[in-house]
Amino acid sequence: MGSAAAPWKSLLLTALESNGHIKHSQFLQLATVGANGRPSNRTVVFRGFQEGSDNIQINTDSRSRKVEELKNCPFAEICWYFTESWEQFRISGRVEVVDSLYPDAIKLQQREKAWSSIPSKTRMQYLGPNPGLPYLTGQPAKENLQDSSSGPVDSYCLLVFNPDQVDYVNLKSEKRFLYKASSSSRGEKLWSTERINP
Amino acid sequence: MGSAAAPWKSLLLTALESNGHIKHSQFLQLATVGANGRPSNRTVVFRGFQEGSDNIQINTDSRSRKVEELKNCPFAEICWYFTESWEQFRISGRVEVVDSLYPDAIKLQQREKAWSSIPSKTRMQYLGPNPGLPYLTGQPAKENLQDSSSGPVDSYCLLVFNPDQVDYVNLKSEKRFLYKASSSSRGEKLWSTERINP
Repeated sequence: MGSAAAPWKSLLLTALESNGHIKHSQFLQLATVGANGRPSNRTVVFRGFQEGSDNIQINTDSRSRKVEELKNCPFAEICWYFTESWEQFRISGRVEVVDSLYPDAIKLQQREKAWSSIPSKTRMQYLGPNPGLPYLTGQPAKENLQDSSSGPVDSYCLLVFNPDQVDYVNLKSEKRFLYKASSSSRGEKLWSTERINP
Repeated sequence: MGSAAAPWKSLLLTALESNGHIKHSQFLQLATVGANGRPSNRTVVFRGFQEGSDNIQINTDSRSRKVEELKNCPFAEICWYFTESWEQFRISGRVEVVDSLYPDAIKLQQREKAWSSIPSKTRMQYLGPNPGLPYLTGQPAKENLQDSSSGPVDSYCLLVFNPDQVDYVNLKSEKRFLYKASSSSRGEKLWSTERINP
């Protein structure tokens, strides 16, 4: 039952389209594991698939705790619930942290491309004080970006989520499917599908 | 800045009230850690606070993977995003798994009480085939509960989430607070509050 195209991707694109009028349908919860072995969980925004792949893009601040956690343990699970269509995608995989020092020119280009699609108002977030640190009264307000056409700031980080398992459930039809990735002999990613009990 | 009452609890109750007209405002994402050290994440339903405490109640099937994971590693983090008020609660803590074999009479009473408040239609879920196992065509449909007034079925499990840290952010006001629990010399739970950068 393997297939080269990710069979859950079309389900996800359909869910995004049918829930497209709801702003929060782009929001998902990303779980990681901290250095203490405890789980962490936070809401992040879906920034699209990487061209021609099933890799999911997420923007973040390189000073945030999730970056530290992912460098320590690269595994993560997305929980994405669509409030109108009652569909849940649990997407398990490995996350690549592409920051300004990433040693690969192609990845750095992808980071630049992702940065260029961020609205200038949102870019300002990366110039604020260190997220999660104590709030100091009188600390300098966000600096202004001198030139909005310039490249990514150092604190901007692109997360590339590479899925290897998707647990999909539709709570209206009560159907649940498990999709698992494996590698072909040519190194191609193959997906299998199994129907499981909800 | 310590206080015996959980200062984030009133914020959460206010968020629940102001988002009360939205069915999914009772839905939250619960992250745990699997035996393989990878994170898991799924949507669950808030079933209220335990009387006179800040412990959060969640119903689940004792045959689900989260129960196995929590028995292995009791730490979890809730991510609860309120789509209308733009508030996020990240609640970190320890989860007690109260199943039919739990060796404490008071906890078993709490489990019975929680079961009695489940609508009979929802109770039927616990009689279906083992969640997550392969779906078999022709497998017996859900059995009927003989007597809806009888006690909890074996597969019903009450999760009691005992918070020790809450990271709250309001994306409208851009204010973020970190609440941390500690114990007083009398064993009482004390909460401290710190404002941190969003």
